Amino acid sequence: MQNFIFHNPVKILFGKGQIAKIPQEVPQAAKILITYGGGSIKKNGVYDQVKAALQDFTVLEFGGIEPNPRLETLMQAVKLARQENIDFLLAVGGGSVLDGTKFIAAAIPFQGDPWDILAKKASVTAAVPLGAVLTLPATGSEMNSTAVVTKEETREKLYFSSPLVFPKFSVLDPEATFSLPPKQISNGIVDAFTHTVEQYLTYPADAPLQDRMAESILQTLIEEGPKTIAHPTDYTARANVMWCATMALNGLIGAGVPQDWATHMIGHELTALHGLDRGQTLAVVLPSVLEIKRDTKREKLLQYAKRVWGITQGDEEQIITEAIARTRYFFESVGVPTRMSAYDVSHETIPAISDRLKNRGMVALGEKQDITPQVVEEILTLSI
Amino acid sequence: MQNFIFHNPVKILFGKGQIAKIPQEVPQAAKILITYGGGSIKKNGVYDQVKAALQDFTVLEFGGIEPNPRLETLMQAVKLARQENIDFLLAVGGGSVLDGTKFIAAAIPFQGDPWDILAKKASVTAAVPLGAVLTLPATGSEMNSTAVVTKEETREKLYFSSPLVFPKFSVLDPEATFSLPPKQISNGIVDAFTHTVEQYLTYPADAPLQDRMAESILQTLIEEGPKTIAHPTDYTARANVMWCATMALNGLIGAGVPQDWATHMIGHELTALHGLDRGQTLAVVLPSVLEIKRDTKREKLLQYAKRVWGITQGDEEQIITEAIARTRYFFESVGVPTRMSAYDVSHETIPAISDRLKNRGMVALGEKQDITPQVVEEILTLSI
Repeated sequence: MQNFIFHNPVKILFGKGQIAKIPQEVPQAAKILITYGGGSIKKNGVYDQVKAALQDFTVLEFGGIEPNPRLETLMQAVKLARQENIDFLLAVGGGSVLDGTKFIAAAIPFQGDPWDILAKKASVTAAVPLGAVLTLPATGSEMNSTAVVTKEETREKLYFSSPLVFPKFSVLDPEATFSLPPKQISNGIVDAFTHTVEQYLTYPADAPLQDRMAESILQTLIEEGPKTIAHPTDYTARANVMWCATMALNGLIGAGVPQDWATHMIGHELTALHGLDRGQTLAVVLPSVLEIKRDTKREKLLQYAKRVWGITQGDEEQIITEAIARTRYFFESVGVPTRMSAYDVSHETIPAISDRLKNRGMVALGEKQDITPQVVEEILTLSI
Repeated sequence: MQNFIFHNPVKILFGKGQIAKIPQEVPQAAKILITYGGGSIKKNGVYDQVKAALQDFTVLEFGGIEPNPRLETLMQAVKLARQENIDFLLAVGGGSVLDGTKFIAAAIPFQGDPWDILAKKASVTAAVPLGAVLTLPATGSEMNSTAVVTKEETREKLYFSSPLVFPKFSVLDPEATFSLPPKQISNGIVDAFTHTVEQYLTYPADAPLQDRMAESILQTLIEEGPKTIAHPTDYTARANVMWCATMALNGLIGAGVPQDWATHMIGHELTALHGLDRGQTLAVVLPSVLEIKRDTKREKLLQYAKRVWGITQGDEEQIITEAIARTRYFFESVGVPTRMSAYDVSHETIPAISDRLKNRGMVALGEKQDITPQVVEEILTLSI
């Protein structure tokens, strides 16, 4: 096991009716800015629950945070929060609203241009405290300290992390997600699955508990994912998928083990150039990464095949092939196509992506740092 | 899944050489009281590492915290800390030192008799911050907010919990545990295993991720436990057992599921009356609890048999019998006898324990609250 530091102070309030407990978690007499996205929370009752819970507080609102939240939008919220001396931010939404609100939290007290937090890794020394009400199980942002923000002007999509932007609390009420469009649930399942795989399918590191915990998340997603797609208001299935998505990226399964993240890095480019949803890009890229890196990932792929998929028949190559095929089929079965062609993305994008990565100075990706731009092209070629 | 709140802000520094990082985790210019037990840390080098790390701080010491830490001893530390205006406590030891130090932390600012925190559940509104250097993988105290303290005068062994006594950080260096006596490692394995079982072997609660994570800990202990007994300086095996013990009682696997804890409650009495180590009492009591409650625990026992032990042959009764037998054999195989007779405890203690429980007003234990004093007698009779 590698040395590690694990620290995750987020308080999780999980279950039915937990939104009503928010007043106990917010500082007394706080002036609160509620942040949200396109307004779906006003249709599904979540907004009303939040407003009812906060009736004794001074509350302002900032809506319109878009998927892949934009610096330009978020800076409007920063301006409002500064003018109004906001003491607490409450993000109500999915990963984009949460990520955007983490940026707002760090940007409010920042001296200088807040984009430097991402572009120049400027140090975050203060942040307005924030909480979250999660309405979309997917990114894990509700229980980590990372945020991804896009600068529209330059089409840069960058991230930052700071312990100061851990949510003080996150409310996870599965019922608050019942009315989501099926596509978002499908993407969320692929997102959680791929987060787990990025921290698991690398090379053995003598960390059997972390391995088994990762396998636990994958098995549970395989079992509960199709149920929650078929029965969106089945509380149990939705609750289990929701908890899996949180556990997939709260730092625990990645503690003390090597990590990959090539699939995410390549996927970013498909979003930037073609507007694919994050889950869609992961479904397209992951099976091909596993195929191209089957030799360096061999031992873990065999373990994955056996423990997660129960594959025991065949020689090693056949077992690995079957495990990758099952992964692809799982993504398709929950409604996320795994081929670029399904999204009208042609082979012409492949050198463009490779060039973008080279131009940003990327040498190589992956847990072995051996996925060069050339290998990225091979991966994407397999994904056509 | 049941509603739950999960909150665990302890920062874990895991691995070789992490003691050297303590200065970054302690408030600047803090006046620190180091607490420890019988002095083994002075023989195995841990004391020297801690002192070297803290060379720029003002450091006082309080040694002599005994196993099952006593109020009478701890109050001496409270007196010293008050006199010296201590700002930070650093517990260096196993679960007893950590538990004792949590009590010291809460007692220092307490108005009135600090024993009321345990005996009258007096509310803890302040505590001196504490950190920990763990030298014995077993109790999980390094990553939770609970402490058990014994009042020698009245032979009461009580616990308290408060979020204020979460360690700010815990250093887990497997090498710091290499020189432990084999018996303590054996007990620690049984302790971690039983902590996990208390939160897992109850009844199904539609929480498959929690189930699988519990099974992950059990499987890893079964795999790594015997290795670390046979090869005490095998870093990997010790690291894995250590991380299992922490994960077994940090609140995660118990989130959203029913819990038992009858084995611990009955075990306490064997310690109080006969001085058995905690791990020893758990090894004696657990197999009999599973046997006596095989009907109410049936579904989970079958799942345990299949997933943890790989038992598939036989009818349901045979499968459950085999799973319980394997549990007993596992405890014996890591060096912890599972019969009262092995500790020279006779059947005469059985009504005495039952009476003690009745006299303290106990009606029933277990996840179904159906383990009455009469059932406790049946359980102990099976354990002779």
